[in-house]
Amino acid sequence: MASEKRLEVVTCTAPVNIAVIKYWGKRDEELILPINSSLSVTLHQDQLKTTTTAAISRDFTEDRIWLNGREEDVGQPRLQACLREIRRLARKRRSDGHEDPLPLSLSYKVHVASVNNFPTAAGLASSAAGYACLAYALARVYGVESDLSEVARRGSGSACRSLYGGFVEWRMGERADGKDSIARQVAPESHWPELRVLILVVSTEKKLTGSTAGMQTSVETSALLRFRAEALVPARMAEMTRCVRERDFQAFGQLTMKDSNQFHATCMDTFPPISYLNDTSRRIIHLVHCFNAHHGQTKVAYTFDAGANAVIFTLDDTVAEFVAAVRHSFPPELNGDKFLKGLPVEPVPLSDELKAALGTDPTPGGIKYIIVTQVGPGPQVLDDPGAHLLGPNGLPKAAA
Amino acid sequence: MASEKRLEVVTCTAPVNIAVIKYWGKRDEELILPINSSLSVTLHQDQLKTTTTAAISRDFTEDRIWLNGREEDVGQPRLQACLREIRRLARKRRSDGHEDPLPLSLSYKVHVASVNNFPTAAGLASSAAGYACLAYALARVYGVESDLSEVARRGSGSACRSLYGGFVEWRMGERADGKDSIARQVAPESHWPELRVLILVVSTEKKLTGSTAGMQTSVETSALLRFRAEALVPARMAEMTRCVRERDFQAFGQLTMKDSNQFHATCMDTFPPISYLNDTSRRIIHLVHCFNAHHGQTKVAYTFDAGANAVIFTLDDTVAEFVAAVRHSFPPELNGDKFLKGLPVEPVPLSDELKAALGTDPTPGGIKYIIVTQVGPGPQVLDDPGAHLLGPNGLPKAAA
Repeated sequence: MASEKRLEVVTCTAPVNIAVIKYWGKRDEELILPINSSLSVTLHQDQLKTTTTAAISRDFTEDRIWLNGREEDVGQPRLQACLREIRRLARKRRSDGHEDPLPLSLSYKVHVASVNNFPTAAGLASSAAGYACLAYALARVYGVESDLSEVARRGSGSACRSLYGGFVEWRMGERADGKDSIARQVAPESHWPELRVLILVVSTEKKLTGSTAGMQTSVETSALLRFRAEALVPARMAEMTRCVRERDFQAFGQLTMKDSNQFHATCMDTFPPISYLNDTSRRIIHLVHCFNAHHGQTKVAYTFDAGANAVIFTLDDTVAEFVAAVRHSFPPELNGDKFLKGLPVEPVPLSDELKAALGTDPTPGGIKYIIVTQVGPGPQVLDDPGAHLLGPNGLPKAAA
Repeated sequence: MASEKRLEVVTCTAPVNIAVIKYWGKRDEELILPINSSLSVTLHQDQLKTTTTAAISRDFTEDRIWLNGREEDVGQPRLQACLREIRRLARKRRSDGHEDPLPLSLSYKVHVASVNNFPTAAGLASSAAGYACLAYALARVYGVESDLSEVARRGSGSACRSLYGGFVEWRMGERADGKDSIARQVAPESHWPELRVLILVVSTEKKLTGSTAGMQTSVETSALLRFRAEALVPARMAEMTRCVRERDFQAFGQLTMKDSNQFHATCMDTFPPISYLNDTSRRIIHLVHCFNAHHGQTKVAYTFDAGANAVIFTLDDTVAEFVAAVRHSFPPELNGDKFLKGLPVEPVPLSDELKAALGTDPTPGGIKYIIVTQVGPGPQVLDDPGAHLLGPNGLPKAAA
């Protein structure tokens, strides 16, 4: 078929990941090499994912990209770094003697379209899922089979962790060229089936400091960040890996909370200081500690990235009670239906003892909604041609 | 006169101090020895002071204390530690061969009454002024002339810094018995006459974590606090001393802000984390950085203690413009008269450029009021018998 020869098209999906040992600070801004290793949990794509279609054709006269339906500048440096890197890998593969399965030239231009199934307002690190998905789709369309850590990383550091499902570490590496700064799976998504993840979307003003500028200022000004990266994170990586391998939720939860707090501490030690947490974030922290104190054990853990939203880890048998506690402390302003998204949660009553333990005055509307999800797999290729975001002409399909 | 023989009475006042290199964490809970040295500015007593009357008499059958008109338990450990220490010093003085000027026994019981001229709601460290004033008054009434650092410190660590006017360092010391953990004046109150201090009283909920419990948890759990105390504070003390001696406001202001931020960073790194700053505090921080960026230099600096209120340092020529900026960003809910307390401030218009630089949406009512003050002297003895808070019968005078 003529169309097959003229247009090679691939559509993939990729997940969001949430770091439990935080990445903050680059030792090389150009190559995006971190000052410490990090470890994350990959979230399930049933709730949160990026979908990306990449198409190459000799008929395309330039690289183009559409994000959430709007064409964006393809010339931005990080996108260019990804494209350069994937083409370098493809050339390398050919020169290594692999047979090229397709009669397509590496000089062909690429069209890319990408959409998220979650609102940007959710404050989730959409760039990680986005660049992982881009790397994965480009690799497929250009026939690259090597490690994609560097391609994704050049787009957004934490994107390399979205290349795998389950529990993923990004080893900082030691080499100046970054070849050993790669992501690796610590445990697959099937490893800890009871683990649940709740995203508490907080009503918030616009974020004042982006994470790229933020972490650069932190590296330049925070002595506490340097100390953390060099003296504290290595032992935390080892301990977190143990917690995951042994499914030790108590220790996993405590270290997750401590590492989130330490990351935000280094933001505060930055000059000028960076504050991502707001009063609602702090009330959520207080709620979690009250909940755990009431139970006499760590049943729930929070972590916060560069924003006010909380990500909560807990086990399946605790989700319903914790959601009831959240509803009690943050009475929803929306009607109940829209407050919970994702995996179903049975409503349960809150005991008077727990109500008393939570103590603080309720904050109506402080939390907009909750997304309930779990650990999930890495990027996927969609075989259904109907899933392509680009039509046979290589342009975005009209929105349905 | 019979009454003179029966009752020895002294009334003193003592100031509040604000640390610019923060004290947070004890290496000895009993002796109240800090894990690092600190440095503070003594505020003027025209605006903020504690007044304390101490009276001894052989007719008193027990030690008693009244705070702000209400009798309190004299048996609380810190009060007892102060009383024990002052009596030990008095005994030491006698055994050293000093003539005892008064025919009063050390076994006489003491009555103490103390009032603050500022509301507890101002969130200022009233315990520092309170214990400094207690130490000073007890020393006078028992005829003690030695260094009072230890007496005040046993009440509240930072109280030893309120024993002097101007700029005061509390040297952490090295000895296990704490004899070298003492306060010393770095420069007198006359040293930097242009310096002004503004206390921005923030509308806030009740503080969740007291500073005594907070700093103990920090010492136990924050690796960043230990690193700060050991590796960073010594150089900061030296630099802050230089800034004060040379009246280098740029460097003084920047280091003051950095040290406040680092203190709050170590609170965040504590487990469970401690948050004293709220959204209004963070808006004030942002306002200060915008104000300085607009001027291209550090004209204003913030510091925050264990609460949401900001203490602002600036020079006299900047007060009016900064107050106008605060009024712009935090439109007062009270009528204008009550918004400014203390030293007079001329109203000035805000330039459109500065308004644009401040940018953020105004937060009406976020700041309740501002106290405008300056650097001031140390504790004073009041000679006027009318100032005594205790009557000839040794009991609090009826409130006027």
